[in-house]
Amino acid sequence: MADRPIGVFDSGIGGMTVVKELFEMVPNERIVYFGDTARVPYGTKSVETVRRYAREDTELLMSFGVKMIVAACNTVSATALEEVEHAANGLPVIGMIGPCAKEAVKVTRNGRIGIIGTEATIASGAYEKAIAEESLIQEKLCETLSKACPLFVPLAEEGWTSHVATEVIAEEYLRDLNVKEIDTLILGCTHYPVLTDVIQRTMGPRVTLINSGAVAAKLVAEMLELERTAGRQTPNENPEHTLLVSDIPRKFQTVGERFLGRAMPEARHVVWKESWTLEP
Amino acid sequence: MADRPIGVFDSGIGGMTVVKELFEMVPNERIVYFGDTARVPYGTKSVETVRRYAREDTELLMSFGVKMIVAACNTVSATALEEVEHAANGLPVIGMIGPCAKEAVKVTRNGRIGIIGTEATIASGAYEKAIAEESLIQEKLCETLSKACPLFVPLAEEGWTSHVATEVIAEEYLRDLNVKEIDTLILGCTHYPVLTDVIQRTMGPRVTLINSGAVAAKLVAEMLELERTAGRQTPNENPEHTLLVSDIPRKFQTVGERFLGRAMPEARHVVWKESWTLEP
Repeated sequence: MADRPIGVFDSGIGGMTVVKELFEMVPNERIVYFGDTARVPYGTKSVETVRRYAREDTELLMSFGVKMIVAACNTVSATALEEVEHAANGLPVIGMIGPCAKEAVKVTRNGRIGIIGTEATIASGAYEKAIAEESLIQEKLCETLSKACPLFVPLAEEGWTSHVATEVIAEEYLRDLNVKEIDTLILGCTHYPVLTDVIQRTMGPRVTLINSGAVAAKLVAEMLELERTAGRQTPNENPEHTLLVSDIPRKFQTVGERFLGRAMPEARHVVWKESWTLEP
Repeated sequence: MADRPIGVFDSGIGGMTVVKELFEMVPNERIVYFGDTARVPYGTKSVETVRRYAREDTELLMSFGVKMIVAACNTVSATALEEVEHAANGLPVIGMIGPCAKEAVKVTRNGRIGIIGTEATIASGAYEKAIAEESLIQEKLCETLSKACPLFVPLAEEGWTSHVATEVIAEEYLRDLNVKEIDTLILGCTHYPVLTDVIQRTMGPRVTLINSGAVAAKLVAEMLELERTAGRQTPNENPEHTLLVSDIPRKFQTVGERFLGRAMPEARHVVWKESWTLEP
């Protein structure tokens, strides 16, 4: 197991914000990342399509002999984690929702938790369900308020992280969350951490932002530490990472570096071979 | 030929703005529309991927026995029209670029033509090339200025057609075009017609906007009229249309109606069966 890589996937390169955290938390681990850039985004698509994509993405990572799967995509984590677990065939699977819900319930003082994410994530109600469960476990009464913020993804990709248009849009999306005086806000999309500054400014300093990717990366580190304590892991000195993508668009390097916070490794191109059938 | 449908495709449902024009111009023609909603958008993806998608989309329409293909997607028209023509196997193919360039050169008074579109369309330089050719044919000196407006697509899909954020973003994107005093602006993306009001307000009343889909629909009507004059066409009284999509997302009806300007016909689901290979 020791030398097998961690498999990480996302609809595109937003999941690089999670890889950034993994580089910090488990610097000696090899990572195989797949970004499905030929079919991105997932967050605006139907549950059925996201489930199919999640299964295919996991199967691709499995072929690289990974030892665990990180679904670095909130849309997949919210709607298709069972498909990922099935395709992972008994390997540990880390989604974005569960760990983040646990952290949010732990952190909140007034019990009012806000959730922002893609259309698909918000429509799934997955965060609400996970927070309700955690409220029982931690014996802490919590209420939730959620809001889909579909324009945040293209704004993050465009790199308008401090543009006045982003301020105006954040103001509009986050208004209700501000009115309801939440004290904790879950960034329920791996693209959102690059918009942390504008979101924090809009929400004010008393609201704690929770980066779902950072929380998940912490859980990965804890799990690997347990493995190591049990003597089943030895760390790599100079881990070699693998970056797989289904499309290499024009702005790939620029956008990737914005999310990863450093130079991107060289990418290998995965080609989806497709044929269609018409449903009856 | 008479009874065979017109095949129209787009990366998603933005091409419905072209169907809207076809309904006006050729109301007795049957239309088979394919929207590749499982892989939308195309405009942010690489030329190689867009070419593969365009070929697959055309092959799908061909299986419906269409008599002509309308590539109702500027990104495809700008980067992959040869692939469409090849897959169309000798059938007439109408793209968005050529007809629109011809119209723009005809309409401009001061010879300064602006072009807005997706990243892929603008990077291709296809409009510039077509306008240069038309300038020679029409013996009219023209210069062009182009600008990629990637946020216009998600804004159109979100339905923020008159939102203050859209005004701010339009102001930013169109500033240079305004400074250069263009008098004609090509809406080089089938999503943009729903943003006509805000774009016209930002550019001022002296700038003529050219809707690429409307111009292409007019060309389709002219071609069919020629066919009819040659006695090879008889119109349908009550044409039945077919709507095919590769995904039916949550907001499909709402967004579709925004582009089509009326209720959407019932959609049939096309499933892409995919398998992957890793490029060497």
